[in-house]
Amino acid sequence: MQFYSYLKEAIAMKFNYLYFITIGLFFLSCESTEVKQVETEADPLPSWNDGELKELIIQFVEKTTDIQSNDYVDIENRIATFDNDGTLWSEQPLYFQLAFAIDRIKEMAVDHPEWNEEEPFRSLLENDMDSLKKQGVQAIMKIVTTTHAGMTTEEFTQLVKDWTTESKHPRFDRAYTDLIYQPMLELLDYLRDHNYRTYIISGGGMDFMRAWTYDAYKIPSDQVFGSTIKTKFDYNDGMPVIRRLAEIDFIDDKEGKPVGIHRFIGKRPIFAAGNSDGDLQMVQWATSGEGPRFGLFIHHTDGEREYAYDRNSAIGHFDKAWDEALDKGWSIVDMKNDWKVIYPFELKE
Amino acid sequence: MQFYSYLKEAIAMKFNYLYFITIGLFFLSCESTEVKQVETEADPLPSWNDGELKELIIQFVEKTTDIQSNDYVDIENRIATFDNDGTLWSEQPLYFQLAFAIDRIKEMAVDHPEWNEEEPFRSLLENDMDSLKKQGVQAIMKIVTTTHAGMTTEEFTQLVKDWTTESKHPRFDRAYTDLIYQPMLELLDYLRDHNYRTYIISGGGMDFMRAWTYDAYKIPSDQVFGSTIKTKFDYNDGMPVIRRLAEIDFIDDKEGKPVGIHRFIGKRPIFAAGNSDGDLQMVQWATSGEGPRFGLFIHHTDGEREYAYDRNSAIGHFDKAWDEALDKGWSIVDMKNDWKVIYPFELKE
Repeated sequence: MQFYSYLKEAIAMKFNYLYFITIGLFFLSCESTEVKQVETEADPLPSWNDGELKELIIQFVEKTTDIQSNDYVDIENRIATFDNDGTLWSEQPLYFQLAFAIDRIKEMAVDHPEWNEEEPFRSLLENDMDSLKKQGVQAIMKIVTTTHAGMTTEEFTQLVKDWTTESKHPRFDRAYTDLIYQPMLELLDYLRDHNYRTYIISGGGMDFMRAWTYDAYKIPSDQVFGSTIKTKFDYNDGMPVIRRLAEIDFIDDKEGKPVGIHRFIGKRPIFAAGNSDGDLQMVQWATSGEGPRFGLFIHHTDGEREYAYDRNSAIGHFDKAWDEALDKGWSIVDMKNDWKVIYPFELKE
Repeated sequence: MQFYSYLKEAIAMKFNYLYFITIGLFFLSCESTEVKQVETEADPLPSWNDGELKELIIQFVEKTTDIQSNDYVDIENRIATFDNDGTLWSEQPLYFQLAFAIDRIKEMAVDHPEWNEEEPFRSLLENDMDSLKKQGVQAIMKIVTTTHAGMTTEEFTQLVKDWTTESKHPRFDRAYTDLIYQPMLELLDYLRDHNYRTYIISGGGMDFMRAWTYDAYKIPSDQVFGSTIKTKFDYNDGMPVIRRLAEIDFIDDKEGKPVGIHRFIGKRPIFAAGNSDGDLQMVQWATSGEGPRFGLFIHHTDGEREYAYDRNSAIGHFDKAWDEALDKGWSIVDMKNDWKVIYPFELKE
């Protein structure tokens, strides 16, 4: 960013005293050609192959943050929302949160011998996935509420943290939190470097994500929204806790995503990224406002380095959103051709 | 803040590039004694009378932001939550949001002649507050849903904005948004200057507040949470809107406040301020965690400059929370004696 436009932004921002300290120090500093060093920018998206898509992203960020551009957006409105499963990390062979739930059931089964006779636990413990699928949504709900409720919020966070350090993805034999997308990390950083706020708006469980999203993506809990179960305040004799109840509160998917965005952020995003039909309404909402807008879909085309799936996949079903992306001219990442690496660990190999 | 601790904080913060530009400029700048100018701080709370309470607040902020203190709190956990009605602005002779609803009913009545015969509208239009009170919560709910639902979120925001510029408080003959507390504005600024994030957690309507809280308090929509009604995404032939439905979603009061804080922020605040029994659970939650904690209640003691009320008032009922504040040693503002001015306009008179 030009230092000139940085100054203008500082004035536009009004209240952030850090800016004023920066400006103060700038004026106090003697004339020095070295100041130009801070203006030099390297490739902000090094894991993205050069091409039209990368160029479009960079153009969008530059024009929305250059005060002299007609498409300039003030800092308060630089809101970018991201789906999580399949957009920021992998979601195959099944949603990682479901893998967590299954691991929990297996762990809890030691204290529940009756589960050997009781569905859906019996099928799950015998790895009878066909039988499990036939039991439908009710079975999944029972597994989720059994594993995600009945403890305090702090206990649940600890369970998720333990799981992310102890469990391994079956194909990659790595922690699930290693399977985040390096190019998306760069995109998140690039947006934040230009004073965008980056939010997760996911169909996945809000508290499940918050246990690890700061370490993985540098996204703090108050910028992570997802599906929720009901909770209850318990004074607990002066040592208050919040207890997780076995009742769904809000499903943050499809039409739920714009509703969740309104509740959680209160502004319409100007940039939204997803990978499946569950993200369609979020991208419709973000891209239909006035001024510059960016809609982005991740197309999973790389069966070798990750997974290849779209219209025929139950997980990450990408069908109506694909058609509409083509129709409306939203950007589509072709993972195989647009991304130099998929995961951060590839950079170290 | 000492520049040394500022540098340490910058490192702790990791990701904010503004810090690094600041640091870069600092090292690029020649030696200059003038740099010390940025360290000088004036009284951060000029509208607070000197005394124990003011000293306690300043001590708390200093110790939690001085990296060399045992009570240092990293930036990610500097969360401060504030009630709104009676804590950041006045709430008498009745909640300002209720005044908005009543004004709306009177405006809408032109198109609803049947309301002259229909309760609770008849009582309201005839200013028969006794009859209205007898009709209880159901009547209030009907007034709220009639005036707060049935439009898009953008239309509702505009209605509130129009009301805040056009309507006047009956006693002060000023816009309701002029009746915010100058000492609390200074406290919000002071906390933010030390990298606290300041949230509103109010029993009042979330969208009602978001229409004006940024202008009034510099608190953006994604840091304003309150009670909500249900909303629904409507694709609306490619011009999507979010519609407000006549159904309560969440009451952010009493036990609801810690639940709302968990959902909206995902961290336990270390500083919480309220003024009534509706804030008790929020302050219990904030003050019972580990490490340094600050609980603050505003006691309305100034009938001349504002209003005097506590245990016997239906609005801003301050009874159990008062007892517990005394018992637990939470801080209590005595408005009459602790505040030099109540409202910002007094400074200009």
